[in-house]
Amino acid sequence: MCGIFAYLNYLVPSTRREILDILINGLKRLEYRGYDSAGVAFEGSSVDSEECFIKVIRQIGKVNILEEAVRSAQDMNFDKPYDVHVGIAHTRWATHGEPSQRNSHPQRSDPDNEFVIVHNGIITNYKDIKSFLENKGMKFESETDTEVIVKLVKHLWETHKTSKITFRELVEVAIQQLEGAFALAMTSTHFPGEIVTTRRGSPLLIGVKSRAKLTTDHIPILYSKGCKELTSTEGDHRGFVGTTHRNEDQTEFHPVGPNKEVEYFFASDASAIIEHTNQVIFMEDDDVAAVQNGSLSIHRISRSIDDSTVREVITLKMEIQEIMKGSFSSFMQKEIFEQPESVVNTMRGRVSFDAEHVVLGGIKDYMGEIRRCRRLLFIACGTSFHSAVATRQLLEELTELPVMVELASDFLDRSTPVFRDDVCFFISQSGETADTLLALRYCKQRGALIVGITNVVGSSICRESHCGVHINAGPEIGVASTKAYTSQFISLVMFGLMMCEDRISMQQRRKEIIQGLKKLPDQIKEVLKMDEQIHNLAQELYQQKSLLVMGRGYNYATCLEGALKIKELTYMHSEGILAGELKHGPLALVDRAMPVIMVVTRDKVFSKCMNALQQVKARHGRPILICNRTDMETQKHAYKFLDVPHNVDCLQGILTVIPMQLLSFHIAVLRGYDVDCPRNLAKSVTTE
Amino acid sequence: MCGIFAYLNYLVPSTRREILDILINGLKRLEYRGYDSAGVAFEGSSVDSEECFIKVIRQIGKVNILEEAVRSAQDMNFDKPYDVHVGIAHTRWATHGEPSQRNSHPQRSDPDNEFVIVHNGIITNYKDIKSFLENKGMKFESETDTEVIVKLVKHLWETHKTSKITFRELVEVAIQQLEGAFALAMTSTHFPGEIVTTRRGSPLLIGVKSRAKLTTDHIPILYSKGCKELTSTEGDHRGFVGTTHRNEDQTEFHPVGPNKEVEYFFASDASAIIEHTNQVIFMEDDDVAAVQNGSLSIHRISRSIDDSTVREVITLKMEIQEIMKGSFSSFMQKEIFEQPESVVNTMRGRVSFDAEHVVLGGIKDYMGEIRRCRRLLFIACGTSFHSAVATRQLLEELTELPVMVELASDFLDRSTPVFRDDVCFFISQSGETADTLLALRYCKQRGALIVGITNVVGSSICRESHCGVHINAGPEIGVASTKAYTSQFISLVMFGLMMCEDRISMQQRRKEIIQGLKKLPDQIKEVLKMDEQIHNLAQELYQQKSLLVMGRGYNYATCLEGALKIKELTYMHSEGILAGELKHGPLALVDRAMPVIMVVTRDKVFSKCMNALQQVKARHGRPILICNRTDMETQKHAYKFLDVPHNVDCLQGILTVIPMQLLSFHIAVLRGYDVDCPRNLAKSVTTE
Repeated sequence: MCGIFAYLNYLVPSTRREILDILINGLKRLEYRGYDSAGVAFEGSSVDSEECFIKVIRQIGKVNILEEAVRSAQDMNFDKPYDVHVGIAHTRWATHGEPSQRNSHPQRSDPDNEFVIVHNGIITNYKDIKSFLENKGMKFESETDTEVIVKLVKHLWETHKTSKITFRELVEVAIQQLEGAFALAMTSTHFPGEIVTTRRGSPLLIGVKSRAKLTTDHIPILYSKGCKELTSTEGDHRGFVGTTHRNEDQTEFHPVGPNKEVEYFFASDASAIIEHTNQVIFMEDDDVAAVQNGSLSIHRISRSIDDSTVREVITLKMEIQEIMKGSFSSFMQKEIFEQPESVVNTMRGRVSFDAEHVVLGGIKDYMGEIRRCRRLLFIACGTSFHSAVATRQLLEELTELPVMVELASDFLDRSTPVFRDDVCFFISQSGETADTLLALRYCKQRGALIVGITNVVGSSICRESHCGVHINAGPEIGVASTKAYTSQFISLVMFGLMMCEDRISMQQRRKEIIQGLKKLPDQIKEVLKMDEQIHNLAQELYQQKSLLVMGRGYNYATCLEGALKIKELTYMHSEGILAGELKHGPLALVDRAMPVIMVVTRDKVFSKCMNALQQVKARHGRPILICNRTDMETQKHAYKFLDVPHNVDCLQGILTVIPMQLLSFHIAVLRGYDVDCPRNLAKSVTTE
Repeated sequence: MCGIFAYLNYLVPSTRREILDILINGLKRLEYRGYDSAGVAFEGSSVDSEECFIKVIRQIGKVNILEEAVRSAQDMNFDKPYDVHVGIAHTRWATHGEPSQRNSHPQRSDPDNEFVIVHNGIITNYKDIKSFLENKGMKFESETDTEVIVKLVKHLWETHKTSKITFRELVEVAIQQLEGAFALAMTSTHFPGEIVTTRRGSPLLIGVKSRAKLTTDHIPILYSKGCKELTSTEGDHRGFVGTTHRNEDQTEFHPVGPNKEVEYFFASDASAIIEHTNQVIFMEDDDVAAVQNGSLSIHRISRSIDDSTVREVITLKMEIQEIMKGSFSSFMQKEIFEQPESVVNTMRGRVSFDAEHVVLGGIKDYMGEIRRCRRLLFIACGTSFHSAVATRQLLEELTELPVMVELASDFLDRSTPVFRDDVCFFISQSGETADTLLALRYCKQRGALIVGITNVVGSSICRESHCGVHINAGPEIGVASTKAYTSQFISLVMFGLMMCEDRISMQQRRKEIIQGLKKLPDQIKEVLKMDEQIHNLAQELYQQKSLLVMGRGYNYATCLEGALKIKELTYMHSEGILAGELKHGPLALVDRAMPVIMVVTRDKVFSKCMNALQQVKARHGRPILICNRTDMETQKHAYKFLDVPHNVDCLQGILTVIPMQLLSFHIAVLRGYDVDCPRNLAKSVTTE
């Protein structure tokens, strides 16, 4: 749940100021992943000798505090140029040990910084390793799980340094001792100008930048077992760039011809790399990537049968403007207001409003298999889970199949029975959500068909699915998901429409929904015009301690998602309540003082919702309604109301959730909180 | 959600004081069903004439306030004896119109009380009927839906009185106009000594008391259609007691031989009747029961093929002591402390600890069919829903079938697909929960096998299921369910054990669980000994505004149920949070000020729970742990802890929920609230 970033320049001279700017800027792009503390480590050389040392600067707080600390560092020569240099950087989201300078990354092996590390993930067996190393006499400085990795590497170095062990081999041995999830990058004073990175469960990708055109589009993998001699002797000199001798089994290549100048970027995600290069390599679990003498090589311990033997170099098409905030005060606000466009992008090239036809290219070849399945499972966390709740009823109606909606962590905890004739959907904005990814692997192992629904192309869930749908909402930077939710929602609706395209009895309903989809962008614009009105409501509510959001049927998901937004951004205790359960407990909470938002639209549960409204009023509650624009009769019963345009029942949830997104945004601003970086939360939850 | 009670004595002379005592006492037994206002209506005769009139007394508040008002009524002769007399009474839980004298029941047709009614349920089309009657010039006094029924009957009377229409016929015509749910009782000055009652969706039963032994055990049903002449002319004189002429088609009978003295009790449930008689008749939907000249007859509009043609007279075995509070300050406290016995009663005669064998008599004949099913569905509301959540994982493990757990209202809203090879379980303490009962009928219509899990013998869910399990927890009076939850939990575990009895690979697990069940009663006693410690914790927490309860795996249900108990009883905003979802939003709520309870026991999700604990601590949260007794290491991380004995993972939830029951009880008492009658709630939710 942290962001890691590293930079290596080889024969591309850069001043220390330039290098540090690249590192800090990389961290800023990753700040959405965590921002309670940050740090950098970079190589240096003292004035009086050429001996390599590593300097570490760390600060509590967001990246700009680190930036100031770096600028004001006294003993640094910012203008000294380096032909070859390595720096690593980290922005943290605490899991073990509270945010403090001591617990920040980079973590070091010893006071001389012989080895330093940045790490994203959780090492579950760190206590055992810590005891082992303490018995060997090592002293620990922090409460982090990370520190055990770097101290373990140092221990291995002390043990094996006489046998000419390489840096990459050291890391390879060390990570075999680790349990849990990690992506990490290390440098060492013993191996100047080298970097080793690896991952298991947490994302990591490599950007390659060269003035010359790359001559290849893939990197072969070297296996430690099966070519042992090679990796322990010659293998060390093989790699991506600058290798001196070729080998017939394709273990090396020259991507930039005779020119050896190259820069490497290592980051938790592409947003930190895209401004430097669009040539990237996605690392897979247990890949170890090392750069030595400017050559990049990727190693694995051993090869299993269905592994790919290469890693593709992919050209990313993301634009840097896409990740900029524009005229909005926060990414989240920008993303809320982007929804009239993002929902169009989700449907673009997929829904034909004239022909009343829907095709999802990513799954169309699998539709036969999906239609013959025993049941549909939708597995996700947080907001993505709510998109499945929102569309469950429609999918049940259109597919006439049993539809189960599961929280990924609970699904795994329960070791839920899964069968070969199940179709399992995994929904995640980032495509990296750890619990969702683990659930995917669990279901895949049991032979189910795996469908991914993600926003990030090339993410782990994309790569490991049999087929899938990209929701095409564009990059989402605000930690609280908004436009991804509405695009996930629409993607699942489109799936439902494909499932029933051959059913005569469903054609009327399909037409109604497709015409409803057509109206959505304009209707979303209408809802966004209520911004000022919602801001006024926020002024009335922002000092409250609690907030209940009630509804049922198609709007239940809006209650869950609205309450989650309020929780995430405003730290107000809000809860989404199924109106049908009101009398089984939650009604006790209702009195004159408790703010209650109720979602009541003109659908088949309307009269039941009105009963709930009457009950809340009978207990002196003062309900704020989210209701339909023309529904004067319902509005009469409201203390206040927000009226949204009417659409077909199953799409109404897209229009009712937007007022909740805006409300949570305004309450958070009024309370003085950072909307894009809510406390304690990170964008992409890549640990269990 | 109200309690209705009525009393009719025929040739059993009683003074007005005795009659009113019976009515008020009946209401007290039903008070758990609602208690925001109460009222009685009884017949009288003025001093100067024999003309019949009806007096109505109503009060806001609980039944004892009504009792005082009745006692202090100025113009009443308490000692006047009546040979024949009818009184009706009501304790209300408001749904339409806030609690007020005007909105209390009995509702009347006009200022002369020509017709009066008590009603439990919701009439969904009351607005249409109200408009119709207002157009006819009728004036309405209250905001209730009930008033339209009594005014409609009066309207019908005005229209048809010249044609010698009977009271029962009037009601029969009126209810054909009603939509929604109801149980009701009416009396009229035009029909002195007569009562008409009916139900649709809400429970109603009739107690019959006679000094002579009853000579029959069933009552035949009269059909308005198909024997029209009879019901409109002679039919009026036929019935239960005191009819003068027999008919060959078994439409009447003489239960007490030549003696005609009889008393009738009509009530929403048996607890109000059992102290008078154990001979009861459960009315079915759309039955209309009328007493005229001391004869009870049961009518239906028409007969459908699979209807029974009689209503059985059932002998109830419930004892009056069972519904008394004993030495405890509240029913809820008594019921919490009864759990060492109630869990034994649930297992009695079913689990053989020596033979390691489990038999549930009520479903054993259906086990073959259940084992061959496609999936298991568990459908319930509130606490009963949580018992299904608690055992879902175990049932998935032991049955290897897909298990779905659904909230009844959401299940119905979604028109969820159900198939002939599904087995559907319906869990409800009272067996009358309206949403659960409607879901049962929905599934039954679709051909699924229906299994009821209830605490009340003879309840609607019992009667309409194909087979079922009585949880045998004994009567539960406290509105917040406690012992019913643990007994439901054990019943579902026993079901799971039966499902896998023939599986060799599961024998070890079965033995482990059966031995775990054996230990439970003593372990519950151990947990109850922490009462004082929990009381101290309550003193620290009772002024808080919010409370989070976190856990995962087998203990997730404890979090949901614990939070619900806190909500119901203390009106504090508490929420059960899946620890696995913490990082997807709820963690933002955690700071030094927010009280957090975490359930962490030694099971396979222990290390994941410890991660969550570390995260909460890293955010300065001060977790109160519910953990295992010997688990010193976990206790070290706690701000405070409550330690419960260790049992097998799948039964641990019974031991972890009891501290939450006690905690909610103590917080409620410290806050000065009525534990047995939480505001806004009623025991048995018999409306949607």
